[in-house]
Amino acid sequence: MNFNEAIRDQWRQQKHVCIGLDPFPEYLPNGITDLFEFNKAIIDATADLACCYKPQFAHYAALGKEHKLKETIHYIKKHYPSVPVILDSKRGDIGSTATMYAKEAFEQYAADAVTVNPYMGSDTVLPFSEFKDKGVIVLCRTSNPSASEFQNQSIEGEPLYIHVARKAQQDWNSNNNISLVVGATAPQEMKHIRSAAPKLPFLIPGIGAQGGDLKSTLINGRFSDGDGVMINSSRGIIYASKEKDFADAARRETEQLQLAINQNI
Amino acid sequence: MNFNEAIRDQWRQQKHVCIGLDPFPEYLPNGITDLFEFNKAIIDATADLACCYKPQFAHYAALGKEHKLKETIHYIKKHYPSVPVILDSKRGDIGSTATMYAKEAFEQYAADAVTVNPYMGSDTVLPFSEFKDKGVIVLCRTSNPSASEFQNQSIEGEPLYIHVARKAQQDWNSNNNISLVVGATAPQEMKHIRSAAPKLPFLIPGIGAQGGDLKSTLINGRFSDGDGVMINSSRGIIYASKEKDFADAARRETEQLQLAINQNI
Repeated sequence: MNFNEAIRDQWRQQKHVCIGLDPFPEYLPNGITDLFEFNKAIIDATADLACCYKPQFAHYAALGKEHKLKETIHYIKKHYPSVPVILDSKRGDIGSTATMYAKEAFEQYAADAVTVNPYMGSDTVLPFSEFKDKGVIVLCRTSNPSASEFQNQSIEGEPLYIHVARKAQQDWNSNNNISLVVGATAPQEMKHIRSAAPKLPFLIPGIGAQGGDLKSTLINGRFSDGDGVMINSSRGIIYASKEKDFADAARRETEQLQLAINQNI
Repeated sequence: MNFNEAIRDQWRQQKHVCIGLDPFPEYLPNGITDLFEFNKAIIDATADLACCYKPQFAHYAALGKEHKLKETIHYIKKHYPSVPVILDSKRGDIGSTATMYAKEAFEQYAADAVTVNPYMGSDTVLPFSEFKDKGVIVLCRTSNPSASEFQNQSIEGEPLYIHVARKAQQDWNSNNNISLVVGATAPQEMKHIRSAAPKLPFLIPGIGAQGGDLKSTLINGRFSDGDGVMINSSRGIIYASKEKDFADAARRETEQLQLAINQNI
């Protein structure tokens, strides 16, 4: 079972929430200093609800704490093997170097999927997708304010993000292991991308703090027969409380988001 | 003195060769197994000739040898502080996450510059360029075969890479610390980019094994008054010999490349 199939299995159990494990030391609950201990508490409280986990690489690398990232992923794989892990590292390089980044993500960190930047073209994506059991999640239309600067520029009458989406669907998905990053902050773009790539899962950041609306996201982003989306929430879940009850609070936020998704999907 | 000024100092000494420190275990000289020992021998043999060094992140991360990368950069900073180090990791993320990647490169690894992918827009670049002493080297027109898939697409009559180059020159360079990656495999594109960004240094991969021509690269890529280029060579220098003389061979190759550059710049 590859990553995309594993996600479908999660969807069948009405799990659509991707929990971003992005610990900032200054936001950790009172009394917690260890990134792994923090992550472990969040994971133990949410693993039966989560569609997937998505640790963001820079949060660990900036502190020289890559070993805490490894420890976190290994913990999930050991205790909750049905919950896939996406390493959000937005790698982008070519040929043999891309293969080395794939080995970093899939072998060194034991992740099930990795985010990839398409600017350099097919050379960047195919060495990752050759790892058939693993998922490759290509940046398409991101959720940040300046995403439109290049991604929305029109090429032969269609924006760059549509060219990326079409290439992903038609040329890169022969192993059925491609997904797209599509931000909730751009609902019309999301609708457009869903029609260009009807069968690719979307990893969707931007709900909540960034201003994305959940209902329009689900209408625009889901497959024609439902599902199709991994809705990411990071700070809204992991920093729901700064007190001792932070793991319970994270569970409550996850439940509420999942409930809101199920009412609209 | 920031990275771009340090590079100009190197140019004034007729140093234009960027040595890529990309060790593949299977290509190491006979009897050498340690990545740092290999790099150290190459560095000691070439530091008086090199414009800069450019270790490629994935070559270390794929093996879980990030500590060898750190050791290499710290060695250069300690023994050859006038030779800048570019961490080639092609990072690309936004806002506070981009700042964390900047800390990874500049604080954890002590690099002087880092390569950055512009697909997500200004959000991706500005958090790096706020580190005023450091260099930010933005992917513009890369040297790989599929680079043209998106980078050469025409937007309002000009290719995407020109929009990136113009934004880099006009909007991102207020701290005078931006450079561009421009591949030697696309000489017409390079000429076009030099006219759009007359004052930004180019980091140029693609000479040698990838087929880029040195003479046309220098004609198209240099500043109007000369200099302006860091010509990268990795395998051509570091694997010049598989025998005991590998460091001497690396020095000879560096000298020859520098001589060929000086005849044309």
